[in-house]
Amino acid sequence: MQAMCSVFIAVSLDGFIARPDGRIDWLNAANAAVPPGEDCGYADFIAEVDAIVMGRHTFEQVLTFDPWPFGDMPVTVLTTKPFRLGRSFPPTVEASSETPQALTARLSAKGLNRLYVDGGETIRRFIAVGLIDSMTITVVPVLLGEGRRMFGALERDLVLDHVTTKSFPCGFVQSVYRFRRDALLQTPTGANPPIDN
Amino acid sequence: MQAMCSVFIAVSLDGFIARPDGRIDWLNAANAAVPPGEDCGYADFIAEVDAIVMGRHTFEQVLTFDPWPFGDMPVTVLTTKPFRLGRSFPPTVEASSETPQALTARLSAKGLNRLYVDGGETIRRFIAVGLIDSMTITVVPVLLGEGRRMFGALERDLVLDHVTTKSFPCGFVQSVYRFRRDALLQTPTGANPPIDN
Repeated sequence: MQAMCSVFIAVSLDGFIARPDGRIDWLNAANAAVPPGEDCGYADFIAEVDAIVMGRHTFEQVLTFDPWPFGDMPVTVLTTKPFRLGRSFPPTVEASSETPQALTARLSAKGLNRLYVDGGETIRRFIAVGLIDSMTITVVPVLLGEGRRMFGALERDLVLDHVTTKSFPCGFVQSVYRFRRDALLQTPTGANPPIDN
Repeated sequence: MQAMCSVFIAVSLDGFIARPDGRIDWLNAANAAVPPGEDCGYADFIAEVDAIVMGRHTFEQVLTFDPWPFGDMPVTVLTTKPFRLGRSFPPTVEASSETPQALTARLSAKGLNRLYVDGGETIRRFIAVGLIDSMTITVVPVLLGEGRRMFGALERDLVLDHVTTKSFPCGFVQSVYRFRRDALLQTPTGANPPIDN
């Protein structure tokens, strides 16, 4: 069985997950307006996860959190650089330069069947090879104008199924989308009949 | 009184309003799945509009619609090029190279108090000078990977108020946001206290 890969991420209304330098001060400021006890579904989401896969940038940001937020959960950090960081991290963390396919297959073989895929570049790589099953996207009502994007270039259109949407009094709009299993088997864009206006 | 400016637009989940060449075949394909009689609030929206402002690209697309979709509604096309098009258009259409501010002031003085601002570049120009009051954004569940974006660069963050969100069985998620009147008076991004992670 191949692991199910899920995304749970916040984006600005104009589609950024961080400023150009990686800062998420805008997200922290927005979170400050969320009432205590409201986690916008994060605890329910993480309770259904067996392991986390993230990119190096995201990991470096997570390392600044105190305490370590992922308990005993296995974490794989995808990186092509030698894995050397300024401070120690839990033994549950491993580094890997595997492809999304190879990593997913290896973790699945270990019985880690529900993966939380995090970080813009990592999410885009997984999407590009058709490995993401569902995305929970929380839209924060702010326009940043520039930054690191959630989505990137694709070989072809990907049509998703909308599962559910809810909004929160703080102004967040959270939608769940599911990728279609055959999404990567669809006709390439260039071959679509041009239904121009 | 200055006119209220509203946006009513569909975007792909990755934030595009058209493909790189302007095509909206993906939107037409998505609309084909919408049940007859469901207009996702467009009739209610347009009933509250006194005049339409759009860019030249959008106008050229509208000209391909048959019949002309805006009845007797005054339409101003913002363009810097000489206004010469291959086919005739209604007498309700005027061309203008005014700034958003000058155009809004002139239309307001004529009693046109509720403006529908359409087209990516035009919307971005109006946002940049703080003239948009509200946006109704309908997110279509498709990733395009590239195209013409809804939003662009900004001088500083713009925090919006979320008004309402509804989703449709076809998978569209429609949110209404309101710009804060003082949005352009906020502290520039660079001067924000860095609440880094």
